[in-house]
Amino acid sequence: MKKILVGIFLGSASDLAIMSETARVLEDFAIPYKMTVSSAHRSPSLTLKNIGNFQKMGAKVLIAGAGLAAHLAGVIASHFLFPVIGVPLKGGVLNGVDSLYSTVQMPPGIPVATVGIDNAKNAGLLAIQILATSDRKLEKKLLEYKKELALGVLKKAEKLEKIGWKNYLQNK
Amino acid sequence: MKKILVGIFLGSASDLAIMSETARVLEDFAIPYKMTVSSAHRSPSLTLKNIGNFQKMGAKVLIAGAGLAAHLAGVIASHFLFPVIGVPLKGGVLNGVDSLYSTVQMPPGIPVATVGIDNAKNAGLLAIQILATSDRKLEKKLLEYKKELALGVLKKAEKLEKIGWKNYLQNK
Amino acid sequence: MKKILVGIFLGSASDLAIMSETARVLEDFAIPYKMTVSSAHRSPSLTLKNIGNFQKMGAKVLIAGAGLAAHLAGVIASHFLFPVIGVPLKGGVLNGVDSLYSTVQMPPGIPVATVGIDNAKNAGLLAIQILATSDRKLEKKLLEYKKELALGVLKKAEKLEKIGWKNYLQNK
Amino acid sequence: MKKILVGIFLGSASDLAIMSETARVLEDFAIPYKMTVSSAHRSPSLTLKNIGNFQKMGAKVLIAGAGLAAHLAGVIASHFLFPVIGVPLKGGVLNGVDSLYSTVQMPPGIPVATVGIDNAKNAGLLAIQILATSDRKLEKKLLEYKKELALGVLKKAEKLEKIGWKNYLQNK
Amino acid sequence: MKKILVGIFLGSASDLAIMSETARVLEDFAIPYKMTVSSAHRSPSLTLKNIGNFQKMGAKVLIAGAGLAAHLAGVIASHFLFPVIGVPLKGGVLNGVDSLYSTVQMPPGIPVATVGIDNAKNAGLLAIQILATSDRKLEKKLLEYKKELALGVLKKAEKLEKIGWKNYLQNK
Amino acid sequence: MKKILVGIFLGSASDLAIMSETARVLEDFAIPYKMTVSSAHRSPSLTLKNIGNFQKMGAKVLIAGAGLAAHLAGVIASHFLFPVIGVPLKGGVLNGVDSLYSTVQMPPGIPVATVGIDNAKNAGLLAIQILATSDRKLEKKLLEYKKELALGVLKKAEKLEKIGWKNYLQNK
Amino acid sequence: MKKILVGIFLGSASDLAIMSETARVLEDFAIPYKMTVSSAHRSPSLTLKNIGNFQKMGAKVLIAGAGLAAHLAGVIASHFLFPVIGVPLKGGVLNGVDSLYSTVQMPPGIPVATVGIDNAKNAGLLAIQILATSDRKLEKKLLEYKKELALGVLKKAEKLEKIGWKNYLQNK
Amino acid sequence: MKKILVGIFLGSASDLAIMSETARVLEDFAIPYKMTVSSAHRSPSLTLKNIGNFQKMGAKVLIAGAGLAAHLAGVIASHFLFPVIGVPLKGGVLNGVDSLYSTVQMPPGIPVATVGIDNAKNAGLLAIQILATSDRKLEKKLLEYKKELALGVLKKAEKLEKIGWKNYLQNK
Repeated sequence: MKKILVGIFLGSASDLAIMSETARVLEDFAIPYKMTVSSAHRSPSLTLKNIGNFQKMGAKVLIAGAGLAAHLAGVIASHFLFPVIGVPLKGGVLNGVDSLYSTVQMPPGIPVATVGIDNAKNAGLLAIQILATSDRKLEKKLLEYKKELALGVLKKAEKLEKIGWKNYLQNK
Repeated sequence: MKKILVGIFLGSASDLAIMSETARVLEDFAIPYKMTVSSAHRSPSLTLKNIGNFQKMGAKVLIAGAGLAAHLAGVIASHFLFPVIGVPLKGGVLNGVDSLYSTVQMPPGIPVATVGIDNAKNAGLLAIQILATSDRKLEKKLLEYKKELALGVLKKAEKLEKIGWKNYLQNK
Repeated sequence: MKKILVGIFLGSASDLAIMSETARVLEDFAIPYKMTVSSAHRSPSLTLKNIGNFQKMGAKVLIAGAGLAAHLAGVIASHFLFPVIGVPLKGGVLNGVDSLYSTVQMPPGIPVATVGIDNAKNAGLLAIQILATSDRKLEKKLLEYKKELALGVLKKAEKLEKIGWKNYLQNK
Repeated sequence: MKKILVGIFLGSASDLAIMSETARVLEDFAIPYKMTVSSAHRSPSLTLKNIGNFQKMGAKVLIAGAGLAAHLAGVIASHFLFPVIGVPLKGGVLNGVDSLYSTVQMPPGIPVATVGIDNAKNAGLLAIQILATSDRKLEKKLLEYKKELALGVLKKAEKLEKIGWKNYLQNK
Repeated sequence: MKKILVGIFLGSASDLAIMSETARVLEDFAIPYKMTVSSAHRSPSLTLKNIGNFQKMGAKVLIAGAGLAAHLAGVIASHFLFPVIGVPLKGGVLNGVDSLYSTVQMPPGIPVATVGIDNAKNAGLLAIQILATSDRKLEKKLLEYKKELALGVLKKAEKLEKIGWKNYLQNK
Repeated sequence: MKKILVGIFLGSASDLAIMSETARVLEDFAIPYKMTVSSAHRSPSLTLKNIGNFQKMGAKVLIAGAGLAAHLAGVIASHFLFPVIGVPLKGGVLNGVDSLYSTVQMPPGIPVATVGIDNAKNAGLLAIQILATSDRKLEKKLLEYKKELALGVLKKAEKLEKIGWKNYLQNK
Repeated sequence: MKKILVGIFLGSASDLAIMSETARVLEDFAIPYKMTVSSAHRSPSLTLKNIGNFQKMGAKVLIAGAGLAAHLAGVIASHFLFPVIGVPLKGGVLNGVDSLYSTVQMPPGIPVATVGIDNAKNAGLLAIQILATSDRKLEKKLLEYKKELALGVLKKAEKLEKIGWKNYLQNK
Repeated sequence: MKKILVGIFLGSASDLAIMSETARVLEDFAIPYKMTVSSAHRSPSLTLKNIGNFQKMGAKVLIAGAGLAAHLAGVIASHFLFPVIGVPLKGGVLNGVDSLYSTVQMPPGIPVATVGIDNAKNAGLLAIQILATSDRKLEKKLLEYKKELALGVLKKAEKLEKIGWKNYLQNK
C-alpha cells in the first residue's frame, strides 16, 4: 500500500480544473498524496471507505473541495482525527457564498480549516505548513517559497518602474 | 418496535425550542412519529444508526433541523429513499442564511425539501401533506386545517373592522 | 381526461430550458405528468384554473419554477392540499437569491418544499420520492437510481486514479 | 357602501403596529380609506374578495404590508388596475431582505410601487401623492407638509447650534 | 412650451439602453413625456433646473433611472410634490443591490416608488397606472393591456401543450 | 463670521449619539468646526445653504453622517470642491449595508471618502489627517496620537500577561 | 524563556470574552501556549515583535481573533512559516461577514486556516489537530474527545426519549 | 530623489488595468506621483520599505488598490500619518464585497478613506481634493473639472433631445 501524507477529495470530477492546483503545489514540494472523487451525498459509503483508506495509508491531512451545499469537508472532519482543510468552490449561481458558509460555519467541536473560495492552491500550502511543523526540510522549503513570492512581487515592481505603466499595460 | 411515519432529527438538543413545533403539529394530526437528537458532525455513527432505525420503524418522511453549516438533512438524504425535509435554524450570527444555503443548495440527485428559516411548523405540515397523498382521512383533515387558517384571518379582519385599529393596538 | 400524478407550472415559457430537467427525470421514472405555462402575476385566473384542472386529473404533487419575486409556488400552495415543490430560478440580476427567498420563506401554515436555485432535476426527484411513499415499484427504482449515482462517482474516481489528473484534465 | 380612495391590506394582524403608520398619515390628510387583514397564502379567496370590494368602494390605490415571502402586494397587483404600493416588513430573521426582494422584483408587466422596509408612513404619503395628481387641495396640503418637514429639520439645527451637542445629547 | 405628463431622468446617457423601455411603454399608451440626461452628482444644478422645467410643462410623475449610489430619484423626490418612480440600475459590480438600497430605503417623509432592478418597463406602467386614477380612457387601455398579458401566457401554454417541450425547446 | 476648518452634517438629529464622536476627536485636536443638522431629502435647500455657509467660513473638509439611502455625503460632494467624508450609519433594519452602499458607490468624477459603518471617530481623524498635509503642528499631534494608540494596546497586553485571562475577564 | 507550542493574538482586549474559549480548550489538552493583545492597525510594530517572540518560544501554530476589517491573521501569516488560524469575530454591525471575508479571502500563496465566526473553540481544536500530526499522545486524546462528543449527544438523545419533549423543554 | 505628492500601491501587477485610472487622473492634474507593486501579504517587508520611501519623497497621500481580503490600505494606514485612500478591487468571485469590507471597516483610530469598488479614478480625484486644501491653483483646476463634468452631461442631454432616443441608441 502506497504511503501518503495528504489525501484530496473532489466532490465532483468537474471540480478537477480548480482542485488540480492543490495537487500541483503538493508535487512542487514533493509531498506524497492521493486524489480521488467522492461525493458526500451521491456516494456516502465510498466517502467513508476513502477516509479509512487514506488513514491507513498514513495521511496526516485531508483536503476536500466541494461546491453548493458543500458538506464534504464537514463529513470528513466528523470521522478524521487530524486536520481537514475545506476549499469552498464557486460552482453554482451564488458565487460560492453557499459553499463558503457550508464549509466554514462548523459547530463547536469539529473544525474545518477553510481557505478562500476556489483557492485550491492555498489548501495545498496550508497542508504543507501543517506537515512542516514536524519536518525541518519542509520548513526550509517554505522559507524559500516565501522569499520567492516576495521576489516575484519585487521584479514586477521594478519592471513597472522601468518601463512605465503605459508600456506595462500594452505588453500584457 | 414502535411503528412511526415520521422521524425527526435535532442537530442539537438546544434546537428543541424551535423544533418542538414540528412535533406539535404532527400530534395535532395524530401522526405517529419519533424525535431524537443526533449531530451530523459530532455523532455521525449515531446519525446513521438512527436513519436505519427509523427506516425499520416504517418512517416515510424524515425531518432534520440544524443550524450553522447545517449538513444534517443532506447527510440523511444521502442514505434515505423517501423525502427528507430540512429546517434551516437561525442558530448562529448569520441569521440562518448559512443554514439555509447549507440545506437547500443540494447537488442534483439528492434533494432536500427545504422550508423557511426556523419554520419548524411548516416542516410538520409538509410531512403531513406527503402522507396525505395516500391517506384520504389525512387529506380531509388538511382541508379542515386550510379552512381554519382562512377563518382565523377572517376573524381578525372582522375584529379590526369592528373595533378600529387604535383599539386593536391597545388591546394587544 | 388524462390521468396525471404530477403537474408542472412554468412562470414563463423562457424557463423551459431549465425546467425541462424536471420533465426529463419524471419521464425516466415513467411518472404521468403535465407541464404548462402560467404566470402568477400576468395570468392569475389561468393559474387558478390550471390548479383545478391538475387536481381533477389526479395530481398528487405540483411543481412550480419561477424567477424574480417568485410567487408562483406560494400561490399554488395556498390552493392545493398536497405537496407543492418550488424551484427558485436564477432569472434576473440577483443570482436567484430573490426567487429563493420568495419561494422558501413562506408563512407558517402554508409550506413550499423548496429545492436549490435552478435545480429542476431535484424537484422531479423529490416528487418521485413523495410518490414512492405509497408505491413499492417506485421505491425500488429509487434504490436503483441511488446505486447508479454512487456507481457514477466510483467510475470517475477509478478513471482519475488510473490515468492521473493531468491526463484527466486534457481529455475533458 | 362606504366610499374610499385607499385600501390597506395587512398580511397578518401582527403587522398592525407598523402598518398603523399608513393609516395615521392618511387620516392626517383626511383621505377616506379602509384597512383589513388578509393573507395571500392563508386566505387567498378572502384576498380576492377584498380586492373586489375595495374596487367597488372606489379605491384608486391599494397598499399591502407583508413580511417573509411577501406575495401580498404582487397578488393584488395581478388583479388591480390602479397603483399597488408594497411595504416589505422586517418580520422574520432576514431583516426584511426577503420581503423586499419578494415585493420589488416583480416581472415586467405587473409593477408594485415599493417603499423602504417597515416604512409604512411612506406608503401612505405615496398614495397621497398619487391622489394629488388630480386633486388641487391635496397638492397644496402636500406642499405644506414638505415645508413643515424642512422646518422641523431647521428647528433641530437651531436648537443644536444654540445649546451645543453635549447639552443636546443630555437633554434627550 | 410642450405639455407633458411624465418626465424621465437618466443618471447617465449609458443608461438609455435599459431606460428606453420606459419611453417605449409610454409611447404605446400615447402618454406625452420628455426624457433627459441629468446626473444628481455631476450636474446637480441641471437636475434642479430640469425638475422645474418638467413641473412647468405639467408633469404629474417623474421617473429616474440610476445605478451605483443611485441618488437621482431621491434628489428629485425632495423637490417634487407628485410621485417619483425610481428604477435601480444594475450598472456596477454589485448587481444593482447598491442602487436598489440607495433608491428604496428613503427616510420617512420622502417616498420613492421603487420598481425592480433594471425593470424600466414597470416604471412606465406604474406611471400609467397613476395617471389612470383620473383618466377613464387610460383605465380601459390598462384593462386591455392586462388581458393581453394573460392571453400571451395562454398562447404559450397552448403551444407548449400542442408541440411538447422537446419541440418547443428546439424551435427556440 | 466664525472661521472653521471642518463642517459636520447630521442627516437627522437622532444621529448625534454616534456623530458626536466626530466632534469629540476634532475638539481633542483643537480643530475649529461647526456641526449642524440638515437632511438631503427633507430639507434640500437648507443643505445647499449650509454648504455655502461652511464654504464661506473657510471649511476645507465636510463630513456627513446619514443612514438608510444615505445621499447626504453625495449631495454635498456634488457641490463642494474639497474632500467630503461620508459616515454610513446603521440606522435602519439593514445593519448599515444600505447606507454603506449609498455612500461609497459614487460615480466616477465625484468621490466621497467613506469610513466604516457608524465609525464617526475615524471620520474626524481622516479630516485631521487631511488638514495635517499642510500643518506641521497637526502632523506632530497625529504622530503622538499614533504612539498613544500603540501604547494603549501594549498596556492591555501587559495587564493580560500579568493577571492572566481568567482574572482579566472577571475584572471587566 | 518559556516554551510554547501555540501563540494567540487578540486584536483587541475586548475580544477576550470570545477568545478565552481558545485558551480553555488548549488548557484542557495541556498544550503550552501564550495569549497576548496586539492590533494589526493600532500597534503594527508590537505585532511584528510578538510574532518574532512566539517564533523564538517555539510556537508551531499562531491563532488570531479579530473583528471588522480583520487583517490580523493575514498580517501574521505574511511573516510566519507555520499554520496561522484566523477566528473572524462578530464585533461590529455586519454580523462578522466583514471579518469572515477579511480573514478567509487571502491571496494565493499566503493561506489563513479560517474557522467559523466567533468559533474560538474550533481554533483551539484545529491547533491541537495540527500538533497531533506528530504527537501520538495528543492523537489519543483527540480520539477520546471525539468519543465524548458523540457520547454527549447520545445522552441528550436518551434523555429526550425518556422524558419526552414537553418535559425536556420545561426542565431547561 | 524624485519629489512626489502621491504614492500608489498595487496589491498585484494584474490590478494595473484598473488602477491606471488613478495615475491617469493624477497626470491630467499634473500631480507628481509614483506607482509601485507591493503585496501586503506576499511582500510585507517591501511594503514597509516603500511606505518609508514614499514618505521621504514627500508624499502627502498614499493610495492602495487591492482585491480579496484587501489588507493593503489598512497596513499602509497603520504606518502613515497622512490620508490613505483604499480602492477595493472586484478581483475574485465575490464581486468586490470582500475587498470593500476589508478596506472600509477599519477599527476606530486608523481610518482608510474608501472609494467605490474598482473606482480608481475617484481615488485620484480624492487625492487631488486633499492636496487642493492647501493649493489654490489645484482648487481652480478642480472647479474647472466640475464644470466640465456638468457640461458633459448637458451635451449628452442636448444630443438626446435633438436626435431622439431611437437614433441615440442606434448611433451608439
